[in-house]
Amino acid sequence: MIKHTVTFKLKYSKGSEEEGVFLKAATQLKTIPGIKNFECLHQISAKSHFEYALSMNFDSMETYNTYSEHPEHTAFVRKYWAAYVEDFLELDYELM
Amino acid sequence: MIKHTVTFKLKYSKGSEEEGVFLKAATQLKTIPGIKNFECLHQISAKSHFEYALSMNFDSMETYNTYSEHPEHTAFVRKYWAAYVEDFLELDYELM
Repeated sequence: MIKHTVTFKLKYSKGSEEEGVFLKAATQLKTIPGIKNFECLHQISAKSHFEYALSMNFDSMETYNTYSEHPEHTAFVRKYWAAYVEDFLELDYELM
Repeated sequence: MIKHTVTFKLKYSKGSEEEGVFLKAATQLKTIPGIKNFECLHQISAKSHFEYALSMNFDSMETYNTYSEHPEHTAFVRKYWAAYVEDFLELDYELM
């Protein structure tokens, strides 16, 4: 099982209309086949400037790659991620 | 529920004796009261230089703070974390 996470900061403030538009679009990603346990999170540690995260599980790297290349994912990246996100860090985990 | 995560890179290589000593000590943290779903993880995204992560859940910020100040945690930080870790990032999450 692979846990794919991406933590990020938006160009827009919390409570803004743009935040709402972005998070609504991000939440739609969960309908892409192969995703398990999709979560939309607030990052709350004061030791990091990131403010949000998306987290999802995949059964295999193949399923993960299928998600990455899925038209709904690439359209989201092009239309929303590139326009709304100021900074991000992708972290993927496997149990030891 | 708060998910506390810390991703990190060691000063020592994978498979080294030092890696084994550090990870064994880190795994012992799970016995501290209040921790739920403790996980020791490999970070596998090539987009980040971090190589490991610890992840654990707490029911409340109070429980999280009790863990942070627990003598076994502070001893681990002093004896192992400070000596073995080259770089790290702490990220804490709450469900939206």
